[in-house]
Amino acid sequence: MSRRRKIYEGKAKVLFEGPEPGTLVQYFKDDATAGNGAKHEVIDGKGVLNNRISEFVFTKLNAMGIPTHFLRRINMREQLIREVEIIPLEVVVRNFAAGSLCKRLGLEQGTQLPRSIIEFYYKDDALGDPMVSEEHITAFGWANPAELDDIMSLAIRVNDFLTGLFMGVGIQLVDFKIEVGRLYEGDLMRIVLADEISPDNCRLWDIKTRNKLDKDRFREGLGGLVESYREVAQRLGILVENDNALTTGPRLVQ
Amino acid sequence: MSRRRKIYEGKAKVLFEGPEPGTLVQYFKDDATAGNGAKHEVIDGKGVLNNRISEFVFTKLNAMGIPTHFLRRINMREQLIREVEIIPLEVVVRNFAAGSLCKRLGLEQGTQLPRSIIEFYYKDDALGDPMVSEEHITAFGWANPAELDDIMSLAIRVNDFLTGLFMGVGIQLVDFKIEVGRLYEGDLMRIVLADEISPDNCRLWDIKTRNKLDKDRFREGLGGLVESYREVAQRLGILVENDNALTTGPRLVQ
Repeated sequence: MSRRRKIYEGKAKVLFEGPEPGTLVQYFKDDATAGNGAKHEVIDGKGVLNNRISEFVFTKLNAMGIPTHFLRRINMREQLIREVEIIPLEVVVRNFAAGSLCKRLGLEQGTQLPRSIIEFYYKDDALGDPMVSEEHITAFGWANPAELDDIMSLAIRVNDFLTGLFMGVGIQLVDFKIEVGRLYEGDLMRIVLADEISPDNCRLWDIKTRNKLDKDRFREGLGGLVESYREVAQRLGILVENDNALTTGPRLVQ
Repeated sequence: MSRRRKIYEGKAKVLFEGPEPGTLVQYFKDDATAGNGAKHEVIDGKGVLNNRISEFVFTKLNAMGIPTHFLRRINMREQLIREVEIIPLEVVVRNFAAGSLCKRLGLEQGTQLPRSIIEFYYKDDALGDPMVSEEHITAFGWANPAELDDIMSLAIRVNDFLTGLFMGVGIQLVDFKIEVGRLYEGDLMRIVLADEISPDNCRLWDIKTRNKLDKDRFREGLGGLVESYREVAQRLGILVENDNALTTGPRLVQ
């Protein structure tokens, strides 16, 4: 890890200089945080699972023509990605009420929303990632109206795909968070999906049991986080069934 | 006050059944509240001043073709208004950073914004009037996209007029809050300005001295609230200069 130049270190991932110009290596840590870093733990094997789950999702999205920063997985904890100019927004898509939306609008957890709702949060730890609207985003120049349209279209496509994907394996996609960036190719600029898609930033409920299979297990101190993430990976066909030794030496389906 | 049927009582105003169908009487109380009612005081003469200032502004807006619910002032504390279906939003227009925006985005009070910003808050005391975005508003059906466009156009027109009006009398319009409603006329529905426009829901700073001439004097315990409101009214030419006896028997310019 220390040979390469570190570009950025976040709560759950590190970005290193990539092997070629315009590329980066995205390293998945085992750190879990909640409440803007107030709660922190290292959970063995989480990074390995998120790397695999995110690879799986981004590969499918690329194949569908939904542009992402993902190039290929390098090893257990690393992916090769394109360098993009990250837009400082967390883009949240909600299908059912959960988390902060319940508190904000007085809704019961699990309430189906009248339609999917896209929310934006300004990425700033010191401010606690405050919710912002299109007005703030365009006024402060974090994205222009055309980019916002692209971001919302992309978010809806990702939601449509993920809703179907998880439904197919008995999981309800309650909500998720994505990040997006500007990818420059010559004179062209495209909005692409960046960051990761994993149980760290999705709310995933088992359709039958209503069990939570996502980071809320950590946020709410329910335990069994890695087991849940492994369950998600297994259902998606990424891990061989009955593989219970992921952190020490998983047998991965290639 | 008690002869007529009360339709609605808010923190600063009461609505009574009007003399004709489709009309209401809007009564201005002297009550001042802040922090969602946590702070409350009765300030002699505030209602009389707000009635006059709001009459002045709404009369000008009507004349400019900006649709409002205002028909005419009836007496010291009452206005005749059209009955509208209130949209459950507080529409805030901000030209300079102040109040909650400073906290939310870490801006210094008084910072000029890159452009005027429109914010929406869902009117619900129990939830503390949470900020919402166009996504929430259209998903929950509080207003549809066409209505939101009308609301934003109306808010911008009101801001343009008020900015000029106050600038002309040496006052900086920092921000303000309006409410809007649906006015039904036969088969037609129009979005119109409702509620009031007064120093209760504008931030008004003296351009030279930077003195606050609005409800922040109450929120921040600065005192001199009625004196400031009277100053605003006098500068707008509503009150005769040197009229210091408004609450007991003001000489109003007719």
